[in-house]
Amino acid sequence: MSFRTIEWRDNKVVMLDQTRLPEEEVYNEYDDFRGVAEAIKGMIIRGAPAIGVAAAMGVALGARGIIADTYESFHRQLDNVCETLGRTRPTAVNLFWAIERMKRVAESNRDRDLQFIREILKAEAIRIEEEDLEICRTIGRYGAPLIREGSTVLTHCNAGGLATAGYGTALGVIRAAYEAGKNIQVFADETRPCLQGARLTAWELMKDGIPVTLISDNMAGYFMKSGAINVCVVGADRIAANGDTANKIGTYSVAVLAKENKIPFYVAAPVSTFDLSIRNGDDIPIEERHVSEVTHLRGHSIAPEGVKVRNPAFDVTPAKYIAGIITEKGVVRGDYERELKALVGR
Amino acid sequence: MSFRTIEWRDNKVVMLDQTRLPEEEVYNEYDDFRGVAEAIKGMIIRGAPAIGVAAAMGVALGARGIIADTYESFHRQLDNVCETLGRTRPTAVNLFWAIERMKRVAESNRDRDLQFIREILKAEAIRIEEEDLEICRTIGRYGAPLIREGSTVLTHCNAGGLATAGYGTALGVIRAAYEAGKNIQVFADETRPCLQGARLTAWELMKDGIPVTLISDNMAGYFMKSGAINVCVVGADRIAANGDTANKIGTYSVAVLAKENKIPFYVAAPVSTFDLSIRNGDDIPIEERHVSEVTHLRGHSIAPEGVKVRNPAFDVTPAKYIAGIITEKGVVRGDYERELKALVGR
Repeated sequence: MSFRTIEWRDNKVVMLDQTRLPEEEVYNEYDDFRGVAEAIKGMIIRGAPAIGVAAAMGVALGARGIIADTYESFHRQLDNVCETLGRTRPTAVNLFWAIERMKRVAESNRDRDLQFIREILKAEAIRIEEEDLEICRTIGRYGAPLIREGSTVLTHCNAGGLATAGYGTALGVIRAAYEAGKNIQVFADETRPCLQGARLTAWELMKDGIPVTLISDNMAGYFMKSGAINVCVVGADRIAANGDTANKIGTYSVAVLAKENKIPFYVAAPVSTFDLSIRNGDDIPIEERHVSEVTHLRGHSIAPEGVKVRNPAFDVTPAKYIAGIITEKGVVRGDYERELKALVGR
Repeated sequence: MSFRTIEWRDNKVVMLDQTRLPEEEVYNEYDDFRGVAEAIKGMIIRGAPAIGVAAAMGVALGARGIIADTYESFHRQLDNVCETLGRTRPTAVNLFWAIERMKRVAESNRDRDLQFIREILKAEAIRIEEEDLEICRTIGRYGAPLIREGSTVLTHCNAGGLATAGYGTALGVIRAAYEAGKNIQVFADETRPCLQGARLTAWELMKDGIPVTLISDNMAGYFMKSGAINVCVVGADRIAANGDTANKIGTYSVAVLAKENKIPFYVAAPVSTFDLSIRNGDDIPIEERHVSEVTHLRGHSIAPEGVKVRNPAFDVTPAKYIAGIITEKGVVRGDYERELKALVGR
């Protein structure tokens, strides 16, 4: 891939500013964890796995800035850093997963000197990033056989290289099928209100030369019904113990339409997206974002002033609509309750 | 209502320019049928019944401009006028219905002098407009009982006063329920790509003080699943003999989601929207519009340059998803094949 979503460089966190794509490919540098928190909140970086990486790097950056004489003081301040990063976005569980993992690393090294802890946190954040890329490639390998030669794949939002450390989850599956020499093409929902499909998925697939057709979200049903779509693959922000999956708003509609038209609907996500502490989708917190995302586009008003707006950023697709969950440990199907648990234990 | 969608004034056709709403309330004047044709094509005026009225007024305007010595010469030129108006948009059948009605009026007066024919065509166009308003009120009366006290009604696109001579079809049902004192509210899909829901439906409901909440198209499923929506009402561009209904792109998805969530889905349309010459929805021509509607918003690019786009403007909702078709002759349910035929004969 010809871009880098996020990286640790010279003790700064460097991110491709996704709010400015596709017009401009600008990289922002952060040397303070608060900047990283704002970047997550403002969707400079987005996508559950990428948010996890950003949060980990944010914790490492925060740790560097802490002045402390004792581990206790360091720990207290690190908790504050983690809390700030954890308050950015509520739905993607990878955020909390990454923060917890960083906390555990600090805690298990509490007897070492603080400079060592700072360094090992930095190393852990970089490891999370590297692992994520590897995980995506493995998801791709497991998922590619599900995309048949000649298929047209519908995807929603961006679960691509831009949503991960690289390669992508849903787009990882598509990339792996394409790299295996399959003649496939992609339909990308534009994904209102923030247009991740139009701005990001179309952009990164075009960069890789994978044939992509952009449609409005409300056209997906039309193309499913007319037989133009053969399979759907999307990412995930949080997967409950029973397989219910939170993902970008509109995913539920894609899943229902796919079922109605007998088209398999797959979710591609790393195991870090599982939240087995949550029994089913009803308990996944759904972020509601600012109304201006709906009423304005690129700063221009597209609705009457003062109109009432709802703007949930995610929805939950019940497990019954999901033909399989493609993870780095294999494809889960059928009895999600049992299978997900088994997978996490593996 | 505090606006006028279309009217014949001083031998000109005056239209509210719907492409400039909600920012500006500008009325365009046309003294040439070609201007009316361009206005229909460019969606200055849109909505199946309003397109019918515009086409009729376009024919009347065209007739005024014809210089002829004989009825044959007049008739030939009038055919050209009708052909130009008929080529503007392919899906809404009301366009062809109105043109045919105007042609029949000319033909049945072929023995009168041309000035009389011109005047009677003008009178007929104005009658079509007046009838449409009356039809909408009647649709409202028939439909209002279907909207229960306390309901939240989802609508898609704009089937309102702006889509008709006034009052609206789907919004006519909502208006009638509201005027009957029912405590109801509306969720309006923004309706990409042209945003008729955000720009027009929200605008006209706010003008009337009817509570409206704007959402992106891909949020409708979320709100249906969460129990926030009680009933769906949409308009129609063409209804086949078996009840299959073409309407704005995304309507099919709303219908499928409504079925999945056990929410009644109604179509509100005048009988002039029926096309009994067409057996089922497969034969309804679907207009595909310019890609820039998807890639640009208010002149601003929202997608990578050169991305491939599909832009069907309508889709077909199979009759099996429709709980009832609300017309000015009553509500049709069940065996649409028989019921629609009976209604037209009535």
